[in-house]
Amino acid sequence: MSKIQMFEKPLGMRDSFPEVYEQKEYIRSIARDFIRNKGYDFIKTPSVEYFETIGRASAIDESSLFKLVDNQGEMLVLRPDMTTPIARIAAAKLLKEKNPLRLAYYANVFRAQQREGGRPAEFEQLGLELIGDFSAYGDSEIIHTAVELVKELGVESFRITIGNAGLLTAILKNNTDTEKQVDSLRQLLVEKNFVGFEQKLEDLELQQNQKENLTNLIEYTVESKALEEFRQFLTNDQQYLMDQVDQLRDLLELQLSDISIVSFDFTLTSHMSYYTGMLFEIHAAGSGFPIGNGGRYDALFNHFNEKVGATGFGIRVDRLLEVLPKNELKEKHTLILFQEGLYSKASELAEERRNKAERVTLQYMGSVNDIDAYIKTFDDVISVSEGGSLRE
Amino acid sequence: MSKIQMFEKPLGMRDSFPEVYEQKEYIRSIARDFIRNKGYDFIKTPSVEYFETIGRASAIDESSLFKLVDNQGEMLVLRPDMTTPIARIAAAKLLKEKNPLRLAYYANVFRAQQREGGRPAEFEQLGLELIGDFSAYGDSEIIHTAVELVKELGVESFRITIGNAGLLTAILKNNTDTEKQVDSLRQLLVEKNFVGFEQKLEDLELQQNQKENLTNLIEYTVESKALEEFRQFLTNDQQYLMDQVDQLRDLLELQLSDISIVSFDFTLTSHMSYYTGMLFEIHAAGSGFPIGNGGRYDALFNHFNEKVGATGFGIRVDRLLEVLPKNELKEKHTLILFQEGLYSKASELAEERRNKAERVTLQYMGSVNDIDAYIKTFDDVISVSEGGSLRE
Repeated sequence: MSKIQMFEKPLGMRDSFPEVYEQKEYIRSIARDFIRNKGYDFIKTPSVEYFETIGRASAIDESSLFKLVDNQGEMLVLRPDMTTPIARIAAAKLLKEKNPLRLAYYANVFRAQQREGGRPAEFEQLGLELIGDFSAYGDSEIIHTAVELVKELGVESFRITIGNAGLLTAILKNNTDTEKQVDSLRQLLVEKNFVGFEQKLEDLELQQNQKENLTNLIEYTVESKALEEFRQFLTNDQQYLMDQVDQLRDLLELQLSDISIVSFDFTLTSHMSYYTGMLFEIHAAGSGFPIGNGGRYDALFNHFNEKVGATGFGIRVDRLLEVLPKNELKEKHTLILFQEGLYSKASELAEERRNKAERVTLQYMGSVNDIDAYIKTFDDVISVSEGGSLRE
Repeated sequence: MSKIQMFEKPLGMRDSFPEVYEQKEYIRSIARDFIRNKGYDFIKTPSVEYFETIGRASAIDESSLFKLVDNQGEMLVLRPDMTTPIARIAAAKLLKEKNPLRLAYYANVFRAQQREGGRPAEFEQLGLELIGDFSAYGDSEIIHTAVELVKELGVESFRITIGNAGLLTAILKNNTDTEKQVDSLRQLLVEKNFVGFEQKLEDLELQQNQKENLTNLIEYTVESKALEEFRQFLTNDQQYLMDQVDQLRDLLELQLSDISIVSFDFTLTSHMSYYTGMLFEIHAAGSGFPIGNGGRYDALFNHFNEKVGATGFGIRVDRLLEVLPKNELKEKHTLILFQEGLYSKASELAEERRNKAERVTLQYMGSVNDIDAYIKTFDDVISVSEGGSLRE
């Protein structure tokens, strides 16, 4: 083989060995029971979609898309998220059967990596979508469910930061003159580059009061001023945005046993450009990146000619693994080694134990090159041979 | 959107709606417990691999591969099977830790479709691989486990057909003059085109006794002659191939409670060109295609510079769904509808029931456009409102 080494995998692609597989399986199983209990139905979508239908709508930067061309010459993409395919299915079929609609997924998604940086190009996400509900009840159900799920999965120390995409857009627009200024400022907030944001304000040709308001936007957040302070940045016909925030906060106070894990931050925004209202991130001790995020994305349905409210969240399984304590899955695994001619006896013994839910590997001794090394990989070894036992 | 319709999916790509999702989940769960109990460990590999490492070795026709190019200009493929990636992992790492090695998977694989023909371009497979064992015990463990698993999954009527890739190759080579003749005859057997095979024999410039032997190969199989009859097609130093078959049959007679579901057919071959010894197909009433297949593929490890025996099987989940009775997953799903201001009361009620493992959807009434249609999608409805009940 030429440049590529025999055992090499593409940039950002990873194997899950048995131990990690079982850790993920534990998460998947807990999450599935929890999510179905709340009335959500699981679905699955193809790994490959048309660029025209899903790629464009997905809000993932085009350079992060895995693109391929099919036999008909159409451009395809590996799904970069699950929210957009689920919106496709909801609009095409499921909303006609049930509205509001509650759907869930546990699926791998793909993000092409530009260079070696330790970021995965394929990772598993679990999440849910509530489609067909414009109300604050919908938003609070999503945040509340995310909090409960993260607790259920065993994450001990975590925080939720809540913003509002509509409110941030209004404040940015109120205090700038062009769409381009809005975009450049928002991009700095996506990167959480507050120093860059303040430098940019100095460079932009804005009025002094605009610059002050935008500086305050950052500082009020940092100083955790009362939410009410933000009303002054909004015009009269924008006050409903702050009313939304108040309503959500009131609902969360009813729902959460510990409201102190929640904070509001109106500089919060996302590279997922389809968020229109409430949006949030979940940060847990042990990971430098959010383990989950979500928000309201009503505008995504414009792509599919539907006007419905939609809100949801996704949790990254790889980041959950970073923050969860390794739970020892210590099931006993027994090896039964047999000599030529003693298969029947060994097999009976194996089935007896397997019927009692014991994991048993049944192995012909003659096929094992290094018996000592092999038996060390089991918890217990039984030898079925003429001569007696290997280890008893 | 231009040619591609808004809701369209690429050729052969399918969604799994909730009902099918849960059917698959049932299969996945039964199979996982069964397979782990036999001592196999589950692993996961990336959906995307290098063409050079996995695509070439995979034995899937190049026209069926989904190919793409990464940001470094390397050719990638969506994995067309799981056996080749598992061989990669085994050779690179896991065989050094445990040998023989028992691995299992439940994973989606990809096969590009050339035209609309109802064949899936992505489908789920579950299977297992026993790596590091050259013995007939290994082969019979694989067949025996496949039979037991198919039974455990609830398939009532099925049959196993067993062939031997080495024996077929020997017979074809003994009775032809060129590699090209062998390939063309084998291809007709892959397609199970016996009429074409006999026509081809007439066209080929072979000696009369060669033609007769090859005609007999087909006819002995059709007439279910005793296995011993095949010894005459083999040279003296090839008799070990028939000994292998006898040994496997003896072991299966010990292992299987009903040996009549097994038949031998030495015309059996596969488009998976890596099989070297025993190979088999599982046919079930209700599907026109095998629901599963497997075999011995020692030669695959040549690609990864290892000399180990390996044998395994895979079962197609989509075909299992065709043959299994639809099991009604009838859990009760309750809807609790609440009016503005009554969230707390409704929520308490919901949690009470959820804690008893009942599925409960909690929904704000004001967000539901068509209440009558909505409540019909639930088994039970509780209304929490000032005025009283919607339906009791």
